Amino acid sequence: MIDRARTLDAGDPLAQYRGRFDVPEGVIYLDGNSLGCLPSATPARLEQVVREEWGSDLIRSWNTAGWIDMPAKLGGKIAPLIGAQPQEVIVSDSVSVNLFKLISAALALRPGRKVVLSEPGNFPTDIYMIEGLEKQGLAERRLAPREELHEALDEDVALLLLTHAHYKTGELFDMAELTRAAHDAGALVLWDLSHSGGALPVDLNGCEADFAVGCGYKYLNGGPGAPAYAFIAQRHIADTQQPLSGWMGHAAPFAFDDDYRPAPGVERLLCGTPGILGLAALEVGVDLIAEIGVENLYAKSQRLSEFFRQCLAESGVELELVSPDDPATRGSQLSFRHDEAYAICQALIARGVIGDFRDPDILRFGFAPAYLRYEDMAEAARHLAEVLESGEWQRDEFRTRAAVT
Amino acid sequence: MIDRARTLDAGDPLAQYRGRFDVPEGVIYLDGNSLGCLPSATPARLEQVVREEWGSDLIRSWNTAGWIDMPAKLGGKIAPLIGAQPQEVIVSDSVSVNLFKLISAALALRPGRKVVLSEPGNFPTDIYMIEGLEKQGLAERRLAPREELHEALDEDVALLLLTHAHYKTGELFDMAELTRAAHDAGALVLWDLSHSGGALPVDLNGCEADFAVGCGYKYLNGGPGAPAYAFIAQRHIADTQQPLSGWMGHAAPFAFDDDYRPAPGVERLLCGTPGILGLAALEVGVDLIAEIGVENLYAKSQRLSEFFRQCLAESGVELELVSPDDPATRGSQLSFRHDEAYAICQALIARGVIGDFRDPDILRFGFAPAYLRYEDMAEAARHLAEVLESGEWQRDEFRTRAAVT
Repeated sequence: MIDRARTLDAGDPLAQYRGRFDVPEGVIYLDGNSLGCLPSATPARLEQVVREEWGSDLIRSWNTAGWIDMPAKLGGKIAPLIGAQPQEVIVSDSVSVNLFKLISAALALRPGRKVVLSEPGNFPTDIYMIEGLEKQGLAERRLAPREELHEALDEDVALLLLTHAHYKTGELFDMAELTRAAHDAGALVLWDLSHSGGALPVDLNGCEADFAVGCGYKYLNGGPGAPAYAFIAQRHIADTQQPLSGWMGHAAPFAFDDDYRPAPGVERLLCGTPGILGLAALEVGVDLIAEIGVENLYAKSQRLSEFFRQCLAESGVELELVSPDDPATRGSQLSFRHDEAYAICQALIARGVIGDFRDPDILRFGFAPAYLRYEDMAEAARHLAEVLESGEWQRDEFRTRAAVT
Repeated sequence: MIDRARTLDAGDPLAQYRGRFDVPEGVIYLDGNSLGCLPSATPARLEQVVREEWGSDLIRSWNTAGWIDMPAKLGGKIAPLIGAQPQEVIVSDSVSVNLFKLISAALALRPGRKVVLSEPGNFPTDIYMIEGLEKQGLAERRLAPREELHEALDEDVALLLLTHAHYKTGELFDMAELTRAAHDAGALVLWDLSHSGGALPVDLNGCEADFAVGCGYKYLNGGPGAPAYAFIAQRHIADTQQPLSGWMGHAAPFAFDDDYRPAPGVERLLCGTPGILGLAALEVGVDLIAEIGVENLYAKSQRLSEFFRQCLAESGVELELVSPDDPATRGSQLSFRHDEAYAICQALIARGVIGDFRDPDILRFGFAPAYLRYEDMAEAARHLAEVLESGEWQRDEFRTRAAVT
């Protein structure tokens, strides 16, 4: 296996990009879908922001270093990765906060309708943000399993809110088809791209999507808790009202008016003062992903995950796959079900193979292709086979739950 | 003047702390109330977070580096600076977003009352966040000039929302007295400490305040767009419901339940994944301010601002003071009114004296005492006298407005 892997690595057109990340020695990192690796250029860029822009130029940097324009500029750089126009995307706050803004905006655009439709088992924060508006009396949460979504799309639905690639299984929704179905029912659509943006080609405008949000710290390699992005289709921007109307979303923040007047563009989604350190780190990651190209990345991740499955099969590992069998219908990950998924995950981490566990019984491996090699696949499969065969996961140390799992 | 200033500096018990900040050469920085200076320890701490915690330890750092606990830990460090208990304060999001959470929480605690009372000319984002809830149909904004606040506190008022030290004038509200008045009217109080927290002693619990928010990037020196903090009095925590119910505020975020259940403590104010770079930088600033001591800082800032006024008077500068005359009733700033405030501010900046302008006619000087010297006061006064006398502010270059003023 390892020889075949090395041959594949030698012929890999993206192999050079591994050197653009600081991948720690002795680690096979299959969790780039949870926290992307550190781009090698990030520390120097942050040093510059901290020492020069903050330390030396101080308050002047809002103008001279362009801090004030960073949310829109960085949104413009993310736009082509998700099939959007530059003026439709802004970087701001967290995915959760942006969900609240855009669910609210959708409800305001569909007066008389209160239902926000999603699926059970969607990433929790997506569902919780609907609940927040439900407790305010403004929304009604409806969860329908994915095979019943069409049926659930009735005349009460204001918004269909789905995560494009499921966080546990990686299963992809057909964005074009579901967007059409929602529109046919008179509803709007909000896509959460946290597990697809930067990992696979997304075509928001090609699908006529209305709204989207996405995460900066996974496939965009923006660092822990990096700011998130939000998309409004051009046709909706002027009518988008959102309740988190902070001063940075004002048409003229520095006029210090008593009355709120939203910025004409997507900047109306801004709320408080943006965190510049987070934005600066995210920009490095976005630039790098854009340089490599999302199509190239997705093609490689499919090859990596299929090769990993081959290696598992050849190692005699039989695990229940909960991700789709067809790589064209899943994101850049493979998830397996095992009653002892938590302990197995910990035993692998002890061997330097970092995947992750998702409650209650999912072992999840992400294939961030910008810095992974085929050799990593062969080695990870070997370790997994050994962990299962040896039963080393049964040790107490691997069964004690940590705060963050 | 300069000799007297140097004598004062020689006897200043806080003089040593200037060396703990990177104050740029040739700059007199009177804008620490807008963006605090860079603590010298910050770059190394960020380098460690980026290279070691993110780069090497990757996802494991949520446990091993304690990332998951940073919002509460840092809240606990801010608490003594504002008269709160450690378990009453959390660091999260921006001031604006935290205002939305706590205004919502207050409205939920006062059913049947919808009015949120503030003053015209409060910092815009405070007023705009009330408007956001007003557009949702959940709040009613009422603005009353400060001399009419008592009268406006009727039985419809759910919440009194005020900024402790006014951003333009520095004028302080009597927190204890107004909190009592609000409670007497059956209303709750939310104090915005953005211009007082870390600059002067605040005693939230001594005043029986209900809620508070504050800024990380001004007197706490957390860096541009640093995360903000929020306070809930212990007696309200269990009953505080807020609509930005993201996964990090869940009692068990990693159980990935479909239903939201708030964390038992102040962590219920958390929403999305916290930005670790911003938190790490803020922690350095908070540690340093705590070490110096808020009482010491406030005493020095009063002495600095009074010495600055003396120097102005001796230089023959007569400007209309809009800050309170008595240093005990203002924060760490002095503001003056002048029709050409913008151009004068720019002319001073060109000389390396960085104050700021607040629309339409305010020249604002902040006295962040951790890194300012009496010598800076004498020099700043000299420059201001020269700018006014020479009329150099009349140059075109000083009258052209920048994006951020």
